[in-house]
Amino acid sequence: MTSPSATQDSYPYQNEPIWSRSEKVIARAAFDAALGRELHEVIQQAKKMASQIQQSSDLWDLEHYLTQRRKEIDRKYDYRYSQLRHVFGKLLHERRLREEDLRGLREDKLKSIRSLAKFLAEDAA
Amino acid sequence: MTSPSATQDSYPYQNEPIWSRSEKVIARAAFDAALGRELHEVIQQAKKMASQIQQSSDLWDLEHYLTQRRKEIDRKYDYRYSQLRHVFGKLLHERRLREEDLRGLREDKLKSIRSLAKFLAEDAA
Repeated sequence: MTSPSATQDSYPYQNEPIWSRSEKVIARAAFDAALGRELHEVIQQAKKMASQIQQSSDLWDLEHYLTQRRKEIDRKYDYRYSQLRHVFGKLLHERRLREEDLRGLREDKLKSIRSLAKFLAEDAA
Repeated sequence: MTSPSATQDSYPYQNEPIWSRSEKVIARAAFDAALGRELHEVIQQAKKMASQIQQSSDLWDLEHYLTQRRKEIDRKYDYRYSQLRHVFGKLLHERRLREEDLRGLREDKLKSIRSLAKFLAEDAA
């Protein structure tokens, strides 16, 4: 009761925005759609690489490709609310999401998502 | 000059048989043929698995299969003369080599290769 964290303004993640129930629905759908599209791409690429295997080095190239993509996807698709704005910013930058997929999120969230996407675009330029 | 290892009988690997030039040719051919057949099997299986991928779990099953097979093949195909009798014993046991593939090796080597193959067969039974 006397702990500092019990006072009104001491919510430990006070810089983290709250996600409303409707925002969570929108976020989940956008996240799942982008992940599904990315997995579909990897599946198509793996099928193509496998069909073209002629020698063992092609085989291990396929293994390496799959391992790298799995790790990258694991890192990128992090569905923690504390991470979601970063995730969406990156997906927007990579054109795996469009802004309309995120319609219905609060403007403060959209602003930080757009801001990260813009930063990544400038960083890549 | 006075080191014990310089005396006539102190060859450090005295239990390792010497491989003659003609035996090395036979060993290399048998080894490469078995490895080639095993890689061909993995390639065929990878192509089959890839062609049947429907969802992401199938994709990561393929990655896991390739990683396991690569590690197993790396371990099994060890072309050091100190290891070759073990390698051939295992390949004989797995029916990846036939005794005639090893024809021309000295009888002491064939004996220890057969002996390991027999041990593995009994161990698996």
